[in-house]
Amino acid sequence: MTLSEIPPGVTEQIRRALEEDIGPGDITTSLLIPDDDIATGRFIAKGRFILAGIPFAQEVFRILNPALQWTSLFRDGDKIGEGDVIAELSGKTSAILTGERVSLNILQRLSGIATLTNTYAEHIQGFMCRIVDTRKTVPGMRFMEKYAVAKGGGYNHRFGLFDGILIKNNHIAAVGSVSEAVRRARGAHHLLKIEVEVETLQDLAAAVEAGADIVMLDNMSVDDMRKAVRMVQGRLLLEASGGVTLDTVRTIAGTGVDLISVGALTHSAAAVDISLHLIK
Amino acid sequence: MTLSEIPPGVTEQIRRALEEDIGPGDITTSLLIPDDDIATGRFIAKGRFILAGIPFAQEVFRILNPALQWTSLFRDGDKIGEGDVIAELSGKTSAILTGERVSLNILQRLSGIATLTNTYAEHIQGFMCRIVDTRKTVPGMRFMEKYAVAKGGGYNHRFGLFDGILIKNNHIAAVGSVSEAVRRARGAHHLLKIEVEVETLQDLAAAVEAGADIVMLDNMSVDDMRKAVRMVQGRLLLEASGGVTLDTVRTIAGTGVDLISVGALTHSAAAVDISLHLIK
Amino acid sequence: MTLSEIPPGVTEQIRRALEEDIGPGDITTSLLIPDDDIATGRFIAKGRFILAGIPFAQEVFRILNPALQWTSLFRDGDKIGEGDVIAELSGKTSAILTGERVSLNILQRLSGIATLTNTYAEHIQGFMCRIVDTRKTVPGMRFMEKYAVAKGGGYNHRFGLFDGILIKNNHIAAVGSVSEAVRRARGAHHLLKIEVEVETLQDLAAAVEAGADIVMLDNMSVDDMRKAVRMVQGRLLLEASGGVTLDTVRTIAGTGVDLISVGALTHSAAAVDISLHLIK
Amino acid sequence: MTLSEIPPGVTEQIRRALEEDIGPGDITTSLLIPDDDIATGRFIAKGRFILAGIPFAQEVFRILNPALQWTSLFRDGDKIGEGDVIAELSGKTSAILTGERVSLNILQRLSGIATLTNTYAEHIQGFMCRIVDTRKTVPGMRFMEKYAVAKGGGYNHRFGLFDGILIKNNHIAAVGSVSEAVRRARGAHHLLKIEVEVETLQDLAAAVEAGADIVMLDNMSVDDMRKAVRMVQGRLLLEASGGVTLDTVRTIAGTGVDLISVGALTHSAAAVDISLHLIK
Amino acid sequence: MTLSEIPPGVTEQIRRALEEDIGPGDITTSLLIPDDDIATGRFIAKGRFILAGIPFAQEVFRILNPALQWTSLFRDGDKIGEGDVIAELSGKTSAILTGERVSLNILQRLSGIATLTNTYAEHIQGFMCRIVDTRKTVPGMRFMEKYAVAKGGGYNHRFGLFDGILIKNNHIAAVGSVSEAVRRARGAHHLLKIEVEVETLQDLAAAVEAGADIVMLDNMSVDDMRKAVRMVQGRLLLEASGGVTLDTVRTIAGTGVDLISVGALTHSAAAVDISLHLIK
Amino acid sequence: MTLSEIPPGVTEQIRRALEEDIGPGDITTSLLIPDDDIATGRFIAKGRFILAGIPFAQEVFRILNPALQWTSLFRDGDKIGEGDVIAELSGKTSAILTGERVSLNILQRLSGIATLTNTYAEHIQGFMCRIVDTRKTVPGMRFMEKYAVAKGGGYNHRFGLFDGILIKNNHIAAVGSVSEAVRRARGAHHLLKIEVEVETLQDLAAAVEAGADIVMLDNMSVDDMRKAVRMVQGRLLLEASGGVTLDTVRTIAGTGVDLISVGALTHSAAAVDISLHLIK
Repeated sequence: MTLSEIPPGVTEQIRRALEEDIGPGDITTSLLIPDDDIATGRFIAKGRFILAGIPFAQEVFRILNPALQWTSLFRDGDKIGEGDVIAELSGKTSAILTGERVSLNILQRLSGIATLTNTYAEHIQGFMCRIVDTRKTVPGMRFMEKYAVAKGGGYNHRFGLFDGILIKNNHIAAVGSVSEAVRRARGAHHLLKIEVEVETLQDLAAAVEAGADIVMLDNMSVDDMRKAVRMVQGRLLLEASGGVTLDTVRTIAGTGVDLISVGALTHSAAAVDISLHLIK
Repeated sequence: MTLSEIPPGVTEQIRRALEEDIGPGDITTSLLIPDDDIATGRFIAKGRFILAGIPFAQEVFRILNPALQWTSLFRDGDKIGEGDVIAELSGKTSAILTGERVSLNILQRLSGIATLTNTYAEHIQGFMCRIVDTRKTVPGMRFMEKYAVAKGGGYNHRFGLFDGILIKNNHIAAVGSVSEAVRRARGAHHLLKIEVEVETLQDLAAAVEAGADIVMLDNMSVDDMRKAVRMVQGRLLLEASGGVTLDTVRTIAGTGVDLISVGALTHSAAAVDISLHLIK
Repeated sequence: MTLSEIPPGVTEQIRRALEEDIGPGDITTSLLIPDDDIATGRFIAKGRFILAGIPFAQEVFRILNPALQWTSLFRDGDKIGEGDVIAELSGKTSAILTGERVSLNILQRLSGIATLTNTYAEHIQGFMCRIVDTRKTVPGMRFMEKYAVAKGGGYNHRFGLFDGILIKNNHIAAVGSVSEAVRRARGAHHLLKIEVEVETLQDLAAAVEAGADIVMLDNMSVDDMRKAVRMVQGRLLLEASGGVTLDTVRTIAGTGVDLISVGALTHSAAAVDISLHLIK
Repeated sequence: MTLSEIPPGVTEQIRRALEEDIGPGDITTSLLIPDDDIATGRFIAKGRFILAGIPFAQEVFRILNPALQWTSLFRDGDKIGEGDVIAELSGKTSAILTGERVSLNILQRLSGIATLTNTYAEHIQGFMCRIVDTRKTVPGMRFMEKYAVAKGGGYNHRFGLFDGILIKNNHIAAVGSVSEAVRRARGAHHLLKIEVEVETLQDLAAAVEAGADIVMLDNMSVDDMRKAVRMVQGRLLLEASGGVTLDTVRTIAGTGVDLISVGALTHSAAAVDISLHLIK
Repeated sequence: MTLSEIPPGVTEQIRRALEEDIGPGDITTSLLIPDDDIATGRFIAKGRFILAGIPFAQEVFRILNPALQWTSLFRDGDKIGEGDVIAELSGKTSAILTGERVSLNILQRLSGIATLTNTYAEHIQGFMCRIVDTRKTVPGMRFMEKYAVAKGGGYNHRFGLFDGILIKNNHIAAVGSVSEAVRRARGAHHLLKIEVEVETLQDLAAAVEAGADIVMLDNMSVDDMRKAVRMVQGRLLLEASGGVTLDTVRTIAGTGVDLISVGALTHSAAAVDISLHLIK
Repeated sequence: MTLSEIPPGVTEQIRRALEEDIGPGDITTSLLIPDDDIATGRFIAKGRFILAGIPFAQEVFRILNPALQWTSLFRDGDKIGEGDVIAELSGKTSAILTGERVSLNILQRLSGIATLTNTYAEHIQGFMCRIVDTRKTVPGMRFMEKYAVAKGGGYNHRFGLFDGILIKNNHIAAVGSVSEAVRRARGAHHLLKIEVEVETLQDLAAAVEAGADIVMLDNMSVDDMRKAVRMVQGRLLLEASGGVTLDTVRTIAGTGVDLISVGALTHSAAAVDISLHLIK
């Protein structure tokens, strides 16, 4: 996947992040730094991680001061070592200092997500199985976070409520049965497949019969997952979901499921450590 | 601290989070759930944690459908046990299902932050020392995340670049010396104190002499922190900062510093697990 | 499909439509109508058509003055006869007059789209074939226009560039071949099917072999469409597209294609005639 | 009329149209097209029409990627022949493909409006009479649509509720009489004339006596329009309105009215056909 | 003029004013005032003035907390005496305190404008002449400020660049002559009159001959104004403009001009003094 | 203080000011001025004043047409004499004319504020005392207005409710006592000082004892202010507030208070006179 153009809605989110941090002005910088002072800032890795977020960090400074010069020394998805200079930024000192925190917050979080995703992906190497993300993202950050999952070697699940049909337990509870739910879901547009969440093998059977394209096995035991794989025999995709950890992910992949969704990729990834060093 | 009125900018951020998830519509729900279907949803804890985020979760549904009835059974800051029903929501099934994910994402993240903060705070019990947060928050979420820190028993540092003067290493690098930096910072408005980040005891001495109100000891050894405390003798506040973990926080508190800032509270807190159960 | 909750982004579009029309104030109304004047307004059909747009017309007045009382006498999708009273609105005269034009513009356009869609749908009755819309909508109006297509008996194609993969001629021109294009498209999330646009039967064969889920036959002759249907034998969906008119649509449906997309539904539908009569 | 600067509110509307279509990303393009791929796109006419919308189509790409090079080969208002290349666009392939639909939707609709307006204008050639538009525009598109009317040889009526006083039937119904309504309207600012809508010659007489500057003859018979023209003898402007078609417009112009307003120009114009061809 | 509905764009401006003042929260109030504390606030006049701004002050609190109860004791345009209670507000103490400053800033400024306008209007009593405002308003406040002028007994000039044609010196400098400028201005819509700014009687003659509807006499001597009035003999409106003060306004009115525009009404009005007293 | 980067929220406010004035287009300019006409505009002072607002006036034109060339001949804070050319602007005539009013409104108001501030500051020369502003600013303009105060030689008080704790009479009325109020205020973040408003010397004593950092003497007599200064002996800052005028400000400064806050700087400053002359 390339990111040729940042979607207009994401640019707006970054602009708002700057507004959140700057508010009515960066007091410290405006008091200390003369308007004509220039410098170079270096983004330096303080640990090992998978990089993600370069285009968004760049966008922070493009919004703040288009005259700054940005040079990337690595690309998203690259493995970064401690001490590596990730990127350099030259121009007005005040602009570099004012945008520092927002750009670091983005880079550190997205690289954290990419790194955790990568760890999960490496744990299941050798299996025909993909690590996928969820909608358990931080409000406002979904595009960037899902981008980071992809850069870390994971795959994206649907983006929101509008680009995929996923019939969950609460829908089934409201509708009454798996088969009725799948029947009603047929009204969607023809480019969308239908996924159904089930908790038992009986419900899996019902979903298959009703014509689901994908079935999510919610918190099922490893044993039941194996049975599920045998039941569907590759006629549809199976997604394991619920409480997946680095300890269990390889065993789950071994059951033969096609997808393993991991909420932790976005809701519980720790940030990596990056700092900006100013050079005069 | 009370949260009588959600600031207008935060309401806008929540509205945008809904727009991000719903986009051009919740397809699954609109296909499956009749318009006049009503239900009750229960927010149920799947683990033990400190609760935070109730007013924001409520705001999600107020924006989506003001006719829904919300009943809180706990308050932010309360200790929640596994299986506890945190809140109930009654009204149109479709609105409950469409708002589910955004409200859970907020509750799970904020409660995660409150819980981690609480753990840090308990580790230093008995010391006259406070755990404070940083600006290392997720873009767009700063208000809610800092609110969660406060509900978890931590204290807030400045909100952004505009409500506190914090002279950091990069500022000093640009200006040339600690004393010159402090001198320039005096131009700010009179309700703001001046904090300076230092890496050595010499710089601490310079900051004290220059008239700083607070000094941040950046990545200093425990030994040096102890010396710092002796040097300033309570004439100004000392804040320990940099790489603080649950393993080191109590030792640091023991040095006599007044504040310990922990970026991890907001950049690396894991989400807690909460689910919404629909009852017809 | 129900429309339980208007997506937040659509509410914002309606608010902007009011801002566009009202700008710094409805001069005529503010000069002529006393603030305490009340009245009832009736939306009256001046012709026969399929109704669409009621929730959005209602939203116009909810934004302008929540105290107005709205009563719908018909529902979207209903067949309306000349002279029928579609809805009634009671309350402040000034608010009714100020919101009149925006609400009528929405109702007239959406009902026009629903009516034209219905005519197409009736032309192909008896065939297992669906009329679908396109992205040829008026900027800002896509949600409402696609809603109107559904209310008129048509079906929706993907909403935008983000909820369906459609490899068009220009993509193939850029990539080099149909099969390479389909191969690359596999990276998308697993709930999205892949559609390919082809102009020849050879390209259809290539698309089928490459594993496309749906193929759009672009401006193909009726003869070739028949051959295409025989070629794929129901293994994937076929969509006829390009220059479809009321004169040709039934013949096209007769070829056995599954979907016929008609840009005219949204880019060239004439508005129906509805007026608002004020009663004191 | 020139369009030196696109009003800021119109730029915002175009930005929103891009957000509507792109949402969280152009999946197909990001999967298929390498980031460094470059190409040229040609906007080619698939029929004959009057061109309108060039500055707005250009703005689409300026927002998306300012580095793209746009070359117009025709100007708004020009007569375009089938096969004509209207404009060329060079630069990143991905940006051209992502902006294609929004730019075409604008060009096709605005050119459709200009073309229909032009047909009306040509039908009344030789008469001292103008074709004018109405407020029956698509929500959010009023500026662009009225611009297209002007480029097609029509004239603009007031833009919204704020830049012209038009006392309509519903206002008169609320106020009680034409003369009282005109009397109250005098409070407006002195650069605005007063127009009154009447259905009968008696009301016309009342409006003239009350001092209206312009009178709109609403759905009047051709005979009555002739009488109206004789009555006012050029002392004020007369506007014919209501159900005007290409069949009736010349006869109406022959009555001597000054203006003929045609809602169909904007509420029922069919789009013209333009396509974008990519060349590598 | 009534203000039945606040235009949506004005509501947005008020919402932004609250965001400007509240930012990430009213710290003092949230620290001091319990969430369940209730009180009554009284808006009390600290001097004599003409009231303006009640609906906007009310809107401040409606946005902040719709549950607050507002009771107006006076209406806009009323003469207020020192000590008068203008309005009362009951409900949550925290909401009253948080909205206090924004509501007072609006009331104090708008009442200041109404009061100054009233003074000008009273100075010219007995003459058939109107005091009108200009576009010299504070960015973002034009609607409210022009509303205040009207409540003070003045009249509004055009709102912006879009609802009136005013050919100023710089336009004439660019075009070359008054008559050419007026000729080109005829292309506007037929509900707009044409006003021309002139500095000499020769230019006045040219403007009259070219068919201007209104002429603005820019910084003309009182003598020349008298001659201008004799020249036009009531065939068109004359507006005196430029450096009008309370000392000169009555003499200017005595020349027989129809309108006197006074920039000071909005660019230099002093605020009146109003305070909010909290009662428990 | 430098203003290296205009905060993103201020850019948005300027964009909105343009939208307010331009709305659906500058009719006069679009009718009169050919699209390719170019000219130079000179901002000329029509009186003597302190300049403020250059970066914001420049931003007006940068938003409207980035190709215009701006040359400043003076800097904010400079003393300007009658007839001085403040800045020059070259490029498209239409863009210069369309942006004229908004840029002048900003420059005239901000220079008016800077000039009035300067007068106050000069009145107290020789005293160790500062003139500070208040939150009595025009909604939406606070950043620019406070910037102008600083350029005029004044000092800024807190920006809003979020960057300083100021316990006012109404807070004390709600809480019950000064000392309880100060006690509660301690919960704020450690970079904020606590200011308390008092009306009597007794309350001053209570505030001192409670540990306030700054005390605002509200409408106190000059005698009491002198006593207050003696009471606190420099242990904390004293701010005189309430009804300060040019007549009284020097006497107040003579009492020894540290700060004198003057609402009139922003709520009642008269605009200075600047005009834009177009040269072809």
